[in-house]
Amino acid sequence: MMAGIPDSHPRKKSLLSRQKIVDGTKKGLLADSAMIAHGRGEAFDYLLGEKTSNSAKTAIKESAARLIEADNPVISVNGNTVVLAGKSLIRVAAVLNCPIEVNIYYRTDERIKKLHSLLEKEKKKLSQEDAPKNWKGDWGVAVMSVNILGREGDGRIEGLEGPRSICSSEGIEKADVVLVPLEDGDRCEALVNLGKQVLVVDLNPLSRTAKMATVTIVDEISRASEILLDDVINNSQKAKNWNNKKNLVEALKIIANNATTPEIL
Amino acid sequence: MMAGIPDSHPRKKSLLSRQKIVDGTKKGLLADSAMIAHGRGEAFDYLLGEKTSNSAKTAIKESAARLIEADNPVISVNGNTVVLAGKSLIRVAAVLNCPIEVNIYYRTDERIKKLHSLLEKEKKKLSQEDAPKNWKGDWGVAVMSVNILGREGDGRIEGLEGPRSICSSEGIEKADVVLVPLEDGDRCEALVNLGKQVLVVDLNPLSRTAKMATVTIVDEISRASEILLDDVINNSQKAKNWNNKKNLVEALKIIANNATTPEIL
Repeated sequence: MMAGIPDSHPRKKSLLSRQKIVDGTKKGLLADSAMIAHGRGEAFDYLLGEKTSNSAKTAIKESAARLIEADNPVISVNGNTVVLAGKSLIRVAAVLNCPIEVNIYYRTDERIKKLHSLLEKEKKKLSQEDAPKNWKGDWGVAVMSVNILGREGDGRIEGLEGPRSICSSEGIEKADVVLVPLEDGDRCEALVNLGKQVLVVDLNPLSRTAKMATVTIVDEISRASEILLDDVINNSQKAKNWNNKKNLVEALKIIANNATTPEIL
Repeated sequence: MMAGIPDSHPRKKSLLSRQKIVDGTKKGLLADSAMIAHGRGEAFDYLLGEKTSNSAKTAIKESAARLIEADNPVISVNGNTVVLAGKSLIRVAAVLNCPIEVNIYYRTDERIKKLHSLLEKEKKKLSQEDAPKNWKGDWGVAVMSVNILGREGDGRIEGLEGPRSICSSEGIEKADVVLVPLEDGDRCEALVNLGKQVLVVDLNPLSRTAKMATVTIVDEISRASEILLDDVINNSQKAKNWNNKKNLVEALKIIANNATTPEIL
């Protein structure tokens, strides 16, 4: 059905992303609530004009700097993130030379395994492509060196109970900087309490995650990941004294402005 | 999982509605995209403060007046509407003495049948309950008289193509006033073009449906349906010269205001 969307359709990217989520659900890659979460994101993205704002670009640049400066960075991905931005994030991990951890809120071994093998498959494909612009080195080796963690579950996130406290000892447990798109509020808070820098991607600037995080990128994950890739390759700025509240207020201003522009009616 | 939500949880109603949509999907009552649509609604409802605004209350009162004055009113329901507000809308139909039509965007005989038999089952249960306050008459008879249309598909919505043009000749085709919650923009437009009054319930005040409709109730369907029931019983006002654009601007003002209140951060 989606194959028929003309390139000129103003919401083509949004409709393709939606189809990826529907397909991912059918393949058993996603939790029950994944489609509902995606729909919430769609609404916020709609109010943000479905484009990356200048304040989001600044937050992505800041996140790139912090990932580059980290001793042990990790990219934590859940089902929706893998489906929407898995490829871009493998490229980011290849540039950063850091692991990706599959870490899902409603943890089941089956879903972890499926997401793990999907990422491994994508790694193989990506290792055959040309290196991103401005990146120097053996791209195939860099991509294949990205360690996909998560199945072992031999680490713990202190401050959480039950299955959602499980993580990888070489991933989240060890990390000083965690890029964790589409995270829930409780886990974001626990990671912050452990002294880690938590960089999130969340379309809702009012969510608990958005408010708890060290740096919040208020943007759609597939758009943000592509810009992040560019920034981890080309960024020369250092991490700053970041005012995340000011950053969230900028996103809220865009929503408020879009809701008050009379010509939209 | 949801059974454990304490009554004190501020978002209990929202979480219970979400669970109804997840369960309805598992039972095959809903289309693939139902959860995504629900998630979009959740986000807008969140920005509206998850309560019925004064402007929504006015739109519900106006809709009640128009349904009461109609020659052939009908309530058109899709899967999400049945799952979230089926019972309340059967009560509304019993008071109005009008039919309910199951009419779904991605029409399949199987889903139509399932939704039809769920509504018939609920009718039987509701016929055993006490009549709503202030309503006079034999409630059991009124409820059991509500005709559940939709399976026959012997009518057409002119201006639409394919399965989504199918309707009931005794329902939407014949109706002068259609209450159609959670409708899509194309069908809303086609119904308006046929000269019908189209009363919609839509949480997104910027959607094409919201902008096309005669009266747009910007509210969550289960809350709106309960208030509508009260209004079709107790309303004594006549239909007015309704300014729907002004009504939508009121809803947008609430969103803009919630996005600019600094204490939320």
